[in-house]
Formats: sequence, structure tokens, C-alpha cells
Amino acid sequence: MNDTKPVIAVIGGTGALGTGLSHRWAKAGYPLVIGSRSAERAVEAAAALEVPSGISKPRGMMNADAASVGEVVVMTVPFKSHAAILDEIAEAVRGKIVVDTTVPFVPPKVARVQLPPDDSAAISAQKRLGNGTRVVAAFHNVAAHKLQIDVEIDCDVLVFGESPEDRDVVIGLAEAARLRGLHGGPLANSAAAEAMTSVLIGINKRYKVDGAGLRITGIGATG
Amino acid sequence: MNDTKPVIAVIGGTGALGTGLSHRWAKAGYPLVIGSRSAERAVEAAAALEVPSGISKPRGMMNADAASVGEVVVMTVPFKSHAAILDEIAEAVRGKIVVDTTVPFVPPKVARVQLPPDDSAAISAQKRLGNGTRVVAAFHNVAAHKLQIDVEIDCDVLVFGESPEDRDVVIGLAEAARLRGLHGGPLANSAAAEAMTSVLIGINKRYKVDGAGLRITGIGATG
Repeated sequence: MNDTKPVIAVIGGTGALGTGLSHRWAKAGYPLVIGSRSAERAVEAAAALEVPSGISKPRGMMNADAASVGEVVVMTVPFKSHAAILDEIAEAVRGKIVVDTTVPFVPPKVARVQLPPDDSAAISAQKRLGNGTRVVAAFHNVAAHKLQIDVEIDCDVLVFGESPEDRDVVIGLAEAARLRGLHGGPLANSAAAEAMTSVLIGINKRYKVDGAGLRITGIGATG
Repeated sequence: MNDTKPVIAVIGGTGALGTGLSHRWAKAGYPLVIGSRSAERAVEAAAALEVPSGISKPRGMMNADAASVGEVVVMTVPFKSHAAILDEIAEAVRGKIVVDTTVPFVPPKVARVQLPPDDSAAISAQKRLGNGTRVVAAFHNVAAHKLQIDVEIDCDVLVFGESPEDRDVVIGLAEAARLRGLHGGPLANSAAAEAMTSVLIGINKRYKVDGAGLRITGIGATG
């Protein structure tokens, strides 16, 4: 990690959440690389991002290349591609922080909690990448379409990982995206936020809203 | 269910959460029976509750007797006693709504999410009681000590169950306890709220507060 802003690689960066987070980090002046299975789509997505003047334009490339370039690597891929893409980038991310945003949806019933064998996608990722790589899980509960525009988002980001220092780095990335990040405890606790996303989707349907979120109360000011 | 307020039986009603919920429901004028493994302690706890004038005093009795008398039966027992007490009351609750508040803690690491084999205490309860009984899961995230006093509580109650009508009954009980209740979806979704309790306990420690709670945002006014 540099003293300055780390290069963030967004794997699956052409998807809804990847686009939203990239939008916010680009605006905040973070150096970005957008990864995709298609280099062409990655280049397009990178070119569409707005950056402050004086900051170099994000680059687009294949996922594994992006993972090599990134100092912090953020996984924003569908659960069905999670394992395969982790295997693809495993060598490139060794020793780095991998921020896993994956929610283990089992379509079509995405409003039903259906936890995977490890109870958590983040734990699966850690097993897959091995102990040399530091998985931190976050950004499960925030509505992707809100990240893509410049609105205040009334949602906290719970950050899970074995090391408080690594969690602090990701809390910093949440703040750069104009969200409050909070220490959620060890990586196993990611199951709570992963499961809560299905609850929020059900609430969106039930209450006819389009971006229910989550706030932790009782710890002082939000935002 | 009567048109009037149902008789609520609070199983394990001498514990912290049972005491807190009983306090609030007694004040709201609900007829209450307090269950415990010790009839003597149940009678004591019942006698300590304040009720509005004209409302009959809560009664205390053994858990299985309380389960027989209650029209709605609320489980507030430690996870380690959960299965045994469910077996004890299974006959008495057949056909009723059983509100399960149980969080599947594995002491001493209660701030670590450690989900049980069924992923959720509520699902275990439903299996144990059989399909003739309607388990609804709720009240996992609210701080028991705050329920015991007359303060506003900045926390939503996520309510899980197969039947929206049964969830509505329990949302009514949340409102009677001066909390906002929300439809959280099917019973399996209870895993999200059960797991979140460990996250909240970790947040209490990390941020040195004593009652972190949870709010769902984006669906209109709280409270």
C-alpha cells in the first residue's frame, strides 16, 4: 500500500455494483483499473468514468491483468462466477487485500436467504485464495444504482475481515465512496450482511421501494 | 386469536429479553403469562410487572403451563435450552403462533457468527414443532435492557415467517412494544437477523456503546 491512494482494481467492473463503486472512487481521485472478461467492455467502462482534473483516466483490461495492476482488488462478480474468477486472479492477488462484495444469491429466489456450504461467500473466497491473501468483505447492502449517481446514500457499509487494519483500509474506501464504513468483526460475520441483502430485496418488493438500506444505530452520527 | 388482545405467554420470561418484552406488553395492556422452569421465579417476575389500571395482573407458572394458556407463545430462552424447551411445549403450542426470538450464540464467542446446522434457530424450531405450528421469528436485534425501561428504541424488528398474516400479528406485537416491525420475508431469512446480533455485539465492544441497533432505511418514516 502506498502512502498515497492505492490503485484499485475492480474485477467485474462492468456490472452494476462495479460501475457504481468505480464511479465514486474515480470521482474521489483514486487510480482505477476496470477488469472484465472482455477487454473491450472494460476499456469502454473505464472511458465512461469521470475523474477530477489532473488525475489519469482509469484503464480497462482483462480481469487477471487488472488484478495484477491493482494494489487493492475488489470483486464485484455474480456468485455463479465467483469461484472461477477467484481461481483466475489467485496468483495476481497473492498478499494483497481482496475486497469481496459477493452475495451468495441462488436465483431465481434472490429474496430468500440460501447460504452456501461455508455460510458465506467471503469465507469461500478466503479458502480459495489461501492465507497469503487478505479477504475483506464489504458493500453487500448498498444499492448499486444509487452508487452510480451522485446522491447521498442512507446505508452503512459493514466491513468484515480478520485484521482490523485491513478493515480500516476498506472503511477508507467506503468513505471515499461517500458511505459510512463500520467494523463488522471477523470474516465469518460476513454471513450476516450477505444474508441481509436478500432481506432487503424482499423489503424492496414488499414495501414497493427501490433501495432499502441498513443503518447501525446507537454509535453516534451517521455519514 | 381473539378480536381483542391475545393472551401472550412468554417462555423463559424471567430472562433479560423476556423481562423486557413482558414489561412493554404489560404496559400496553396485553394479558400475559410468564413461564419459567421455576414456577416460583415466574410468579415473582409476573408480580413485578406494571399493568394499566383495570387490566388483570400477569400470572407466573411453569413453561409448559404458560404455553398452554398463551394464545401467542413467545420463546425467549438461551440457545442451549432451545431444543429441550421446544420439546416440552410442543403439544401445548400446536396450531398456535410461536414467536421465536432465539439467537444461536455459541459462547464464549458471541460476537462471532456461528450458524447452526439449519442456518437458523427459527428453522430448527419449525422442524421441531412440526408444520401444525406456525413459527414466526422476531426481536433478535433489540437490546433487552432498553426494553426493560421506558425509552424510545432506535431499532427495527425484522419479522420472518411463511405467512404474511402471521407476520402481521407479530408486527402488531412489536408495535405494542413501541418498536417498528417490518416484514423480513420467509422463515429462512431469520438467519440474517440472527447472525446480525453477533455483529451488533461486536460493534458494541468495538465502538464502546451498549445498545447498537439496526434500522432499515428507504421505506419511509421510522417508528
